[in-house]
Amino acid sequence: MDTLRKKIAARQNPTVAGLDPDFAKLPAFLREQAVARRGKTLEAAADAVLAFNRAIIDALCDVVPAVKPQAAYYELLGWPGVRALAETIAYAREKGLFVITDAKRGDIGSTMAAYARAHLGTVEIEGAEITPFGADALTVNAYLGSDGVLPALEVCKAHGKCIFVLGKTSNPSSGEIQDKLVDGEPVYSLLGHLCAHWSGMAAGGEPSGRYGTVGLVAGATYPAQLAELRQNLPHTFFLVPGYGAQGGGARDVAPAFDENGDGAIVNSSRAILYAWRKEGCNERDFAGAARREALRMKEDLNAVLADHSK
Amino acid sequence: MDTLRKKIAARQNPTVAGLDPDFAKLPAFLREQAVARRGKTLEAAADAVLAFNRAIIDALCDVVPAVKPQAAYYELLGWPGVRALAETIAYAREKGLFVITDAKRGDIGSTMAAYARAHLGTVEIEGAEITPFGADALTVNAYLGSDGVLPALEVCKAHGKCIFVLGKTSNPSSGEIQDKLVDGEPVYSLLGHLCAHWSGMAAGGEPSGRYGTVGLVAGATYPAQLAELRQNLPHTFFLVPGYGAQGGGARDVAPAFDENGDGAIVNSSRAILYAWRKEGCNERDFAGAARREALRMKEDLNAVLADHSK
Repeated sequence: MDTLRKKIAARQNPTVAGLDPDFAKLPAFLREQAVARRGKTLEAAADAVLAFNRAIIDALCDVVPAVKPQAAYYELLGWPGVRALAETIAYAREKGLFVITDAKRGDIGSTMAAYARAHLGTVEIEGAEITPFGADALTVNAYLGSDGVLPALEVCKAHGKCIFVLGKTSNPSSGEIQDKLVDGEPVYSLLGHLCAHWSGMAAGGEPSGRYGTVGLVAGATYPAQLAELRQNLPHTFFLVPGYGAQGGGARDVAPAFDENGDGAIVNSSRAILYAWRKEGCNERDFAGAARREALRMKEDLNAVLADHSK
Repeated sequence: MDTLRKKIAARQNPTVAGLDPDFAKLPAFLREQAVARRGKTLEAAADAVLAFNRAIIDALCDVVPAVKPQAAYYELLGWPGVRALAETIAYAREKGLFVITDAKRGDIGSTMAAYARAHLGTVEIEGAEITPFGADALTVNAYLGSDGVLPALEVCKAHGKCIFVLGKTSNPSSGEIQDKLVDGEPVYSLLGHLCAHWSGMAAGGEPSGRYGTVGLVAGATYPAQLAELRQNLPHTFFLVPGYGAQGGGARDVAPAFDENGDGAIVNSSRAILYAWRKEGCNERDFAGAARREALRMKEDLNAVLADHSK
C-alpha cells in the first residue's frame, strides 16, 4: 500500500478515478470515428473506449494518484474489450498512475492464483515470463474464505502488489448478507478482521506496518459502519466507493481516514467520466470536464479532511 | 435450467466437464507446436489451449451434456486467452454442449448487468446486437446481495439463460464465512433461500417450475450440507464441484439429487482433462483418456444414483 500512499501524498489527493466506460455513453464523435473505421463491431467499441480512456488519463494524471478500471465494462466488449483493458492499464502506469483493477475476483487454490497472476503477476510460457495485465492492485471477493485470498497474497508478495477485499459495499442491498450478525458481529466486520489477519500473514506473521497488503472495500453510503471499521482496523487501508453518483458526500467519507488524513482512497467513477454531460459543455471537451470535476472533488475532500484531522 | 436438464437426460449423464486448461500442464507436443508457430507469447499459449479444448470437446460431446470453462485460466493468458475462451464457448455450443462459464462474477446494478450481458447476453454497438461470449449459464458470487443478482436475472429472462450462485463451496476454508450462523442458520443456507426467492422473482412471482433460473453451487466435499440443502430447496438445481481431484466420490454427491435422479450436475475438471497423465498413456491420446475417464465417471454416478432413487 506504500506505493499508493506515496502517490496520494504527492498529489495531495486521496481520489481514485473509476474507469467504467460504457460505449453507449461515450461522446458521439468518438463512437462515430471508431465505427467509421471498423464497422459496428466489438473492435470498434474497444477502440473508442481506449481513445476515451487515454484522453481521460492524460487529463487526470497530475490530479489523481490512481485509476480503477471496472473489468465488467471491458468484458462487455468481448476479447477486444479485454485487450483495451490491458492497454488502458499499461497507459495509466506509463503516466505514473497506480492502477486498481476492480474485478472482484474470488476463487480457490490454483484458480485464485491464476486470477492473481493474470491481474497482478506473470505467467510463464515455456520459460518466458509474461505480464498479462500488470495492475498494481485487485479487488477480491472473499466469500470462499482464506482459500480464496492466500493464493493472491503469494502473488502480491512476489510482485509487490496488494488487494482490496470486499467488506461493506456501497449498494442498498449490501446488508442482506453483510449486515447479518454472527455471534453479535456483522459479517462485514468479520471480513474486516480477516483482512487484518491476512495482512499480518502477508507480512510473515510480523506485526504489519502502518497499512498492510490487504485493504478493505467499505462504502461511503454507510458512514457509521465506516467509522466503526476505521476504529477497529487501524492497519487496514480502505477503498471507499459510493461518493458522488451513488449519493455519498465528503462528510460521509471522512470517517474512513485516520487522524493524519491517511488510510483511505475515495472512488468516483461516473461523476468524473461523464462530467461533460452534467456541465452541458461541448462533448469534445469531455476530458477537460473530467479534470474540472476531479479538481472540485479534491478540494471538497481536502476541506473536509482538514476539519477531520483537527 | 430445462435446456440443461434435457441434455442431461439425453446423455443419461449428470456430469459437467470443467475446462480449466493450464498451459504448463498441456501435452508437450501441443505446447511445442504453438511456440514454434508464434514464439513464447500469450498468443501461442492461447492457441495451444484452444487446440486442446477442441480435441477434448470432440472426445466428450456425446458423453457429457455440459462443459464449464473456468475463466481464471483464460484470463491468465491475457486478452488472447480471453479470445480462446470465447472461441471455446462457441465451439462447445456448436457441438451441442451446454456451457457454464465459471467466472464467479459479482457486482451491482449496471456493472452486474454488464457482466451478465457480456457472458450471457448481447451488447449494442450503434444499433447492432453483438454476442461477446454467449454462454448458457454463469456462476455468480452474491456477497453483494440482491443488487448483484437481479440485474443478471433480467439478462437471463431476455436471453433464456440461467445462473448458479455460490452457496457452500467445496474448499476446506469455505466455512470461515459460509458456515457462520445467522439467527441459527448458516450463511450458505441463507444464500440457498435467497436463490429460491430470486428464482421465484425471475418467474414473475409465480411459483417456479420444477427447477428455477437460479441454481446453487454446493460442494461434494460437504455431503451432509448437500443433503440438507436438497431437502430445503426442492426447486433449486445444484452445481456440485469437488468430485474427483478434490476428494468427493459418487456417494458424496448422491444427496444432491432428487428422488428421480434429477436436480444436480456434478463437475469434474482435472480428473478428466489430465486423465492421460494418470493413465500414463501416450500424451497424444489425451482426448481418448479424457473420454475414458468421463465414461468411467458416468458409470460411477449412475450406479450410485440407481441405488439413491430406490
